[in-house]
Amino acid sequence: MIRVDLNADMGESFGPWKMGDDAALLKIVTSANIACGGHAGDADVMAATMKLARDNGVGIGAHPGFMDLAGFGRNRLSVPRATLQNQIRYQVAASIGMARSLGTGVRHLKLHGALANMASEDEQLARDCYDAALSVAPDLIIMVLAATAQQQAVERLKCDWAGEIFADRAYNDDATLVDRSQPGAVIHDPLRAGRRMAQMVKAGAIITESGRYIDTRIDTICLHGDTPEAVAIAAAVRRALEEEGVSLATFEGHA
Amino acid sequence: MIRVDLNADMGESFGPWKMGDDAALLKIVTSANIACGGHAGDADVMAATMKLARDNGVGIGAHPGFMDLAGFGRNRLSVPRATLQNQIRYQVAASIGMARSLGTGVRHLKLHGALANMASEDEQLARDCYDAALSVAPDLIIMVLAATAQQQAVERLKCDWAGEIFADRAYNDDATLVDRSQPGAVIHDPLRAGRRMAQMVKAGAIITESGRYIDTRIDTICLHGDTPEAVAIAAAVRRALEEEGVSLATFEGHA
Amino acid sequence: MIRVDLNADMGESFGPWKMGDDAALLKIVTSANIACGGHAGDADVMAATMKLARDNGVGIGAHPGFMDLAGFGRNRLSVPRATLQNQIRYQVAASIGMARSLGTGVRHLKLHGALANMASEDEQLARDCYDAALSVAPDLIIMVLAATAQQQAVERLKCDWAGEIFADRAYNDDATLVDRSQPGAVIHDPLRAGRRMAQMVKAGAIITESGRYIDTRIDTICLHGDTPEAVAIAAAVRRALEEEGVSLATFEGHA
Amino acid sequence: MIRVDLNADMGESFGPWKMGDDAALLKIVTSANIACGGHAGDADVMAATMKLARDNGVGIGAHPGFMDLAGFGRNRLSVPRATLQNQIRYQVAASIGMARSLGTGVRHLKLHGALANMASEDEQLARDCYDAALSVAPDLIIMVLAATAQQQAVERLKCDWAGEIFADRAYNDDATLVDRSQPGAVIHDPLRAGRRMAQMVKAGAIITESGRYIDTRIDTICLHGDTPEAVAIAAAVRRALEEEGVSLATFEGHA
Repeated sequence: MIRVDLNADMGESFGPWKMGDDAALLKIVTSANIACGGHAGDADVMAATMKLARDNGVGIGAHPGFMDLAGFGRNRLSVPRATLQNQIRYQVAASIGMARSLGTGVRHLKLHGALANMASEDEQLARDCYDAALSVAPDLIIMVLAATAQQQAVERLKCDWAGEIFADRAYNDDATLVDRSQPGAVIHDPLRAGRRMAQMVKAGAIITESGRYIDTRIDTICLHGDTPEAVAIAAAVRRALEEEGVSLATFEGHA
Repeated sequence: MIRVDLNADMGESFGPWKMGDDAALLKIVTSANIACGGHAGDADVMAATMKLARDNGVGIGAHPGFMDLAGFGRNRLSVPRATLQNQIRYQVAASIGMARSLGTGVRHLKLHGALANMASEDEQLARDCYDAALSVAPDLIIMVLAATAQQQAVERLKCDWAGEIFADRAYNDDATLVDRSQPGAVIHDPLRAGRRMAQMVKAGAIITESGRYIDTRIDTICLHGDTPEAVAIAAAVRRALEEEGVSLATFEGHA
Repeated sequence: MIRVDLNADMGESFGPWKMGDDAALLKIVTSANIACGGHAGDADVMAATMKLARDNGVGIGAHPGFMDLAGFGRNRLSVPRATLQNQIRYQVAASIGMARSLGTGVRHLKLHGALANMASEDEQLARDCYDAALSVAPDLIIMVLAATAQQQAVERLKCDWAGEIFADRAYNDDATLVDRSQPGAVIHDPLRAGRRMAQMVKAGAIITESGRYIDTRIDTICLHGDTPEAVAIAAAVRRALEEEGVSLATFEGHA
Repeated sequence: MIRVDLNADMGESFGPWKMGDDAALLKIVTSANIACGGHAGDADVMAATMKLARDNGVGIGAHPGFMDLAGFGRNRLSVPRATLQNQIRYQVAASIGMARSLGTGVRHLKLHGALANMASEDEQLARDCYDAALSVAPDLIIMVLAATAQQQAVERLKCDWAGEIFADRAYNDDATLVDRSQPGAVIHDPLRAGRRMAQMVKAGAIITESGRYIDTRIDTICLHGDTPEAVAIAAAVRRALEEEGVSLATFEGHA
């Protein structure tokens, strides 16, 4: 029985400003990466999103990013290493305590935005971030972009981790994503996206544009939540996976 | 053997801006109320201050306030109740996780600034804040302004608490502070402040300007940390207490 | 020939978060109250909104509020008077310079949210705010809630001003708004709203729920922009006014 | 008669947090670079600092930086070009209007921190920033780090500019600063600093560590204001310059 987790970023509203349809997404995904007030989210948004995730039986993850609300954590920042680690600790800590106050817990960690991109290229940076998170909560499962420097970092740390691939992105032969400027880089057809995902999950490998197979652990598939069509695409990917006989359930971490 | 705790607010620097001499104060006090990033403090400041407190054997407290950095939590805000509770949860949670990452823990909670003032006048507001904090960490000891609505709130909640008086302020007959505009409202002589404190601690009562005794539990004395003379005054109060035979140690909470 | 201005708040997006459909509203209104980065808006949002307003021939106003992004300027704050005045100066200044960089200018000022509510009850506060704005730009036309303390303030200041009424709110006999908790407080039918507005504009008076007429200058009508139905309602009010023979044009100020 | 301007950054306090002794510095310098609320400063601080500068007859400059209070504008950020330009416009605009409300004006612009460093290496970035500032205030004099990409940018823009050198830093043969990790990189002796400055001003050239002369316009000398010894050093540099027969006065811009 092949199974995989579906995850999406959420809790990214702020104050009066809404982003995404978290309530709808939480009926589709099995893990939620919830912003921690760094790049998005605030205390109210975090509490409301965690409550919804808990009530839908969805696994809760801390989703820290650069502390840059105005830039939504999308700009690369040269934050000193020790500062970055403290900022990760702060965000993860806030998540964990907020979850506890709601009678639930935080299972996993996933980095956000520019910080995630930088960590997928720089094993040391990834380790710095993961070390900081684990110093607050040693049992966290670290969600990594499969076959990137993020994965190297968790293998070195020997912590629990889960490997992630993207539902809607084409892959190069070195497991990096095809640049968005290239034709075919983004897969817009949810049915095709779902079938590709089923194929990769069954193969236990990223299948690149050239047809190459890169063996890697695939525990979870990333769905996007912040576009108008996001919910429809997410639902279609889920259906396609189910039709291919893939079971959907919250991932377990493995060291 | 009469004993009492000495507490001070700290960790109130932010980014490049310093406030107070926390390292010196931590050699004098037995409890530290450390800002949580709401009205002051940031992840680096919080981590550095907690580390110092831990290394000095000083009890660590979460010191949440209104989330208003520019106003330092000194302006009264009409934040909706549920939002305020989530903001308290968020700040307390961040404190607890940060302390854990440093191998230590958070023992107590003390409200900051305008929020503390409002809670000392409004039992329901005090309970809202304390309830929120306890939902994150049920074992927190709540530090209250003795004989105010804050104390009524903890008595109603039946949680662990500690009663606090001010080293340098004169009291009215209803246990409120003499307004700063009145002569004698602020006690500038540390020797006199220390003797008054010893007298009150031994009596187990606030002694008002008119000489009235208001029986109350006195577990801790608040010292100020944010003025240039703060450290000298704090040290002098400590010496005066010791000379009066009062022992100084981190408080225990009592329900 | 009876004429009136239509105004709406806009430029209230922030970073990645969108609010309202400013492009559509700018085809309907004749004046735009553009947030200044205090309660909402940022440099990009302000520039984009001003550009659109300019290109649609819509009068640009500065729309300062409490500097409280997370609360969207909706919470009452006890900011010291001098600080509040400097915050108004700062926001108005930013608006004026940004408009100049786009080859246009700022014609009017309208206070936002809790600050506007407080100023409509407190003439001194209103004067403090208007004085501060006029110290930056003496030619600003001050938009006031007609027949409130805001109007008293501009009459005292003898500055240019424009009187505003709400398209969708019922009025009490003292010219205050009927509380939202009361039946009929909010007018949901745009046709009815438009007719009422035409009636009031022609009468030069606020018409209260009891049928009383309160003579007042009506230069502009406030339309809401931040709900999903906002654009449809705004368009319907505009049509209803035109059908009643009321001409729509950017207001002139009068001392 | 040789003359030069002395400038220092100031107005870099924020809310309750103080930085530097602006009142003392304003008795020494002839130009003040005043933070605009981006990397430091707030409306109160800006108003108070401008008032003091005005009262001391010191030329006022806008001192924008990355909008990153927590990082004090010292971290390199990859802000999109159009956003950066709008952020510069916003900050410059706020400065100009605030100055006007105080009956004074803004004469010059100087970039702050990481943004200044990046602009001294990247002519296009420097031009983007200066273009944005000039779109708000075409008469601004742009203060540039002499003989860097900043200077190339103003020469290309053909705007008014003033060239700046550092009082306390040694120079490499390519006009870059000797890295702080090298011995002799920072000149701690104010007397020596003052003599060097007099020598360079008279020569109209940067004199490098190897003794090379790099001809450049020197209109102003940068003094630091944010260290405990800053005021003493600044005063000593000023005295040394005067003893060398250099006259001190606010610079004029030249195209």
